[in-house]
Order: sequence, then C-alpha cells, then structure tokens
Amino acid sequence: MHNRILKFTNAAIVASAAVVGKDEYEGPLGECFDLHDSTDKFGMNTWERAESEMQRLAFNTALAKLSISERGVDALFAGDLLNQCVSSAYGLLDFDIPYFGLYGACSTAVEGIMLAAATVSAGYFKTAAAVTSSHYCSAERQYRSPVEYGAQRSPTAQWTATAAGAFMLRKNGSVRVREALPGIVIEKGISDASNMGAAMAPAAADTILRYFRESGASPKDFDAIVTGDLGAEGASILCELLLSEGLDIREQHKDCGVLIYDIERQDKHAGGSGCGCSAALLASFFVPQLERGEIRDILAIGTGAMMSPASIQQGQSIPAIAHLVRLSCES
Amino acid sequence: MHNRILKFTNAAIVASAAVVGKDEYEGPLGECFDLHDSTDKFGMNTWERAESEMQRLAFNTALAKLSISERGVDALFAGDLLNQCVSSAYGLLDFDIPYFGLYGACSTAVEGIMLAAATVSAGYFKTAAAVTSSHYCSAERQYRSPVEYGAQRSPTAQWTATAAGAFMLRKNGSVRVREALPGIVIEKGISDASNMGAAMAPAAADTILRYFRESGASPKDFDAIVTGDLGAEGASILCELLLSEGLDIREQHKDCGVLIYDIERQDKHAGGSGCGCSAALLASFFVPQLERGEIRDILAIGTGAMMSPASIQQGQSIPAIAHLVRLSCES
Repeated sequence: MHNRILKFTNAAIVASAAVVGKDEYEGPLGECFDLHDSTDKFGMNTWERAESEMQRLAFNTALAKLSISERGVDALFAGDLLNQCVSSAYGLLDFDIPYFGLYGACSTAVEGIMLAAATVSAGYFKTAAAVTSSHYCSAERQYRSPVEYGAQRSPTAQWTATAAGAFMLRKNGSVRVREALPGIVIEKGISDASNMGAAMAPAAADTILRYFRESGASPKDFDAIVTGDLGAEGASILCELLLSEGLDIREQHKDCGVLIYDIERQDKHAGGSGCGCSAALLASFFVPQLERGEIRDILAIGTGAMMSPASIQQGQSIPAIAHLVRLSCES
Repeated sequence: MHNRILKFTNAAIVASAAVVGKDEYEGPLGECFDLHDSTDKFGMNTWERAESEMQRLAFNTALAKLSISERGVDALFAGDLLNQCVSSAYGLLDFDIPYFGLYGACSTAVEGIMLAAATVSAGYFKTAAAVTSSHYCSAERQYRSPVEYGAQRSPTAQWTATAAGAFMLRKNGSVRVREALPGIVIEKGISDASNMGAAMAPAAADTILRYFRESGASPKDFDAIVTGDLGAEGASILCELLLSEGLDIREQHKDCGVLIYDIERQDKHAGGSGCGCSAALLASFFVPQLERGEIRDILAIGTGAMMSPASIQQGQSIPAIAHLVRLSCES
C-alpha cells in the first residue's frame, strides 16, 4: 500500500465565512456566524434559491474579509446536496471564476478544502475557494417530504442545517492546511436513511484509523478531532468502533452535528447534518480559534452519506465517505 | 486577469476504456468500444444499477489494460448525472481507493481528467483515475419521464448515451495531458431543457475563446477540437458564436454528440449527450488515435448543463460549463 496522507507545504486558509438560518443562529454557537436571516429565506421565493443565495453571501463575505474582488480568485471548488448541485451552480453563477463542481454529500466542505489546498500548494492557483451549503427546507422536500406535511421524525434522524460556509486558500497564512487524507467509499449494510450517523461512522473510523496508523501520531497530539456531521448517534458509534480498534479519541472528539444545536432545547433529535453544518462550524468556530492561537492543531473529518432517495427505495444500503484535513496554526 | 491555462509537465493518459449499450454499439463507432451489452442492463435489475455496473466494468477494463489491481490506483475522480451521483458511489464501491466525488454534468469526464492530471503532475498520486457514466433509461426517468411512457421528443432534444468511460493517468505515457483550462459557469437565458445544446454552446465558446486568446495558438495547430456533447444544434451554434468573434474552428471541430450516433438512421434528433458520451468517445476513439500517432494534438472540451428538473420547474435558466484539456501524443 502506498502512503496516502497528502502533505502540503504551501497551503493555508486565509479567510472563511458562514451564513446560517434561524435555528442555527439560536443554537449555542449562534454568535460566531457572520450572517443570519431569521426567516431562512434570504429574500428569495423558493427554498432552493434561498440556499443558493446563502452560498453567494458566504463567498462574498469571505471575499470582503480578504478585501478582494472575484478577480482575485482563481478557482472555486463547490457542491451541495441538491439534485445536480444546483445551489452551487446558481449561487456562484454571478462570479466569473473557474468552477470545479464537487459531490461529496456532507463531506463537501472538507473535500473542497482538500482540493483547494492541493492545487494552491502545487502552484496551480494563487487563491482558491471552497464553498458549500445546505438548507433544511430544500433538503427535507428532496430527501424526505416537504416540511409543510409535518412528517414525524425518527429519534436517530439528523436535522439538515440551514447553513453555508466559504473558505479562501492561499500559499501563506495563519491557518495552515498541512495534511489531507482522502476518504474511501465504505458501506456496512445500513439502509435506514433516518440513521445516517450509523452509515457514516464506519467511514469516519476507517479514515481516522488510516490517519493514525500511517502518521504514527496520537490523539493527544491534537487539540480537537472534529467530525462533521455524525450527530449524537453516529458520534457514539464512531468512538465505540475506534475503541474496539484500540484508539481512544473521546477526549479530543467533537462532532459538528452535536455542537451546532442545543439538541434537547431545540428538539433536534440526533443533531445537525448537511453540507453547511460542518462548513459553517469550521468556517466560524474552529478556523477562528486557530487564527487566534487558542487551539493549535486539529483534524477535521468531513463525513458524507452518498445514497439518493432512489437508491434507498431500490433497497440499496448507504455508502459513506470521510475526508480528513489537518489544520494547524502557524507557529 | 491571471493566466488561467494550467500547464502540466508530468501527466499522461496511460490507459482508457469504454463500455456502451446497444444503440452506441450500433452507431458508426461501435467497433471502438471495449464492451457492450445489447440489453442495456448489464445483468442488473434496475437501470441505475446497470449504470453503476458500467462504471465498474469500464474501470476494471482500464485496470486490466495496465495489468494492475486496485492497489495500484491512488485516487478516483468520479461523478455522473444521477441524483447524488449514485452511479459512481455504488459503481466504484468495491474498490478500496480514495474517492473524490465530482459533479460537472456532461463535462465530468474532462473535469476528472483535469483534476487527475493536476494531482498526478504535482506528485500527489502516482496513478489516478477519472471515471464517469450515463444511461439513457436512468436519465430519462430522472430528467424527463420513464421511457415506458413513450413521451414525444423535441427535435432539439439530445439522447443520453448509455456509456461509461475510464481513464488512468500517470506521470509518463504516450498521450500527454499538457494543458487544461477549467470552465466558468455561464448562463445566457436558455430555459428550454429540451435544447441543452443551445445552453451549453456559450459556455464552450467562452472556454475556447479564452484558450486561444491566452495561448496565442490557432485552430490549425490542432488535429481536432472536440466538444462533448453539444449535439447538432449546439455544435452549429458554437461555430456561429466563434465566427462572430473571428475564430473559425469549423475545419477542426468534432462533437461527440454528433459522432456517437448515425443521427438520421438511428433517429437521435440532435444527437447524443450524457457524461458517458464524451467519456466513451475520448476513451475509445480519440485517445487510441493519439496513442497510435494518427493524430498528434487535440483540444477536448467537456460541456455540461448544470440545471436540475426542479430548477427548470421553478423557471430558472440553464447554467452551463465547459472544461478544456489539451491532449498530445508524445513526440
């Protein structure tokens, strides 16, 4: 087996921004996010357009933080959960920037950061951006049923976050992307689309185990091992799976799906999910802490469930993936 | 504006393979393809699984041509047209290989070749693969209506090819990927989903014009300028758009959507489309000609229409993209 951890000598997140909806703003980390709209509509007349608008706003905010225009960005890596990734295609249509469309389900933020870091570090681009989003109402009607129907949710169900995140990458900056480990698609027989945490946990375990085996590092070398978004159910399965392999990450482990809501008070069942969940938390909670030097070294593992409503209806199990990046503050 | 053409010093297509259905096999280039199944089912009980199986077969065939196993491949870049790109996620699930999910609609083959070439040339991977597919029956029921309904087709409609293509990239080989120019998402007001050629032609024109302006090359420097898949309608619009800008590519221009079928005899309206159309023609028609030195230098421009059925129903226009790679035989 070849070495699979990619090392980047010249890649850093130099700005990031997040845009969220009402529930995310009212969650425990609500004050971190750059923008919110308590109607979840962002001035649009469909949920899908609202989601596109969130991507546009997140990317625009990140541009503003760097004090540059679109002309200063060489590549966009973007994707989302909607069929044919239309939130990204329409949301970023205004920008005259080369565009790489991605599909990694809820792992898209980390997939985008990984590819942006790889291409910037190799010198292909001076500035590259990773952008993604999700919206509770557009996701519900596409994956389950329109919110207006009032369908009952299973206790293991996760709540698709109304959130978008954007990351700007350049060669040099205070938050370095030092390593990446791309995920492998894994399927362990889970076919309950209301329990995506259980489907994604084995993929997260696979990537995390491969990282520690190849790097020789130990969980205590990191201030946090952040998964996004396994939710409460998936997070506990992940820790159990890793313990059974002799790896204890419980002290360092944080899950974006658990952090984004006050699960009990906000009645969010197993917690948050959606491309925007980990994107917003990385952009507005973890990256700023690295910038300020409050934490120095983290692993961020984006997790995605790669099924479709049709594949579930046809009786197939849920394939999942987990991409990892190591983010460190410049010492 | 920065230079936007990416130059690769160390990237080559070292093997490629294509798998097609009945109509593609019965088309004018049918003999080129590696495998076909005249039932279009590939032994599966749903069209979606058949499409996944085509990806698996195409990738397996490419592995066999290199006489390597999956252990010899460091990264997969894959995507398709189905919601949540399930053809790729399920089709390549058997392989224990890091996976980058892409969504570029019918530009996916070129997007994948571009990212595989970039990452191989930068030394991140020794061997990377780009894989994609489309299937007439899975696409019809997702985008339009199930084939069994017998809906009438518009004269400008394109026929989604039942086809899959796989490309293996390494540092050195006889078919070099010398340059790439990633596309920009463009929308020119076309909202007729039965005329995707018209929606994609402006994106192709934008990329081709940018390539010739930045490179200073002339169309006669190339043996072929291959677009995939504008179809007959889009191909003629492209040539007109370029002529109005003073660029005449008519002598070198070939379109995969026009080439794959005998449009009149096979009643294919404006010709072929789908991720698999350009993938199969590049893999089995153009790349082998470059390998044999029959042609020496081509531009391949993958074109994608990035709308969804929902975005069309909501009255939005069709955004499109065109990614370009330059393929040359090693002299």
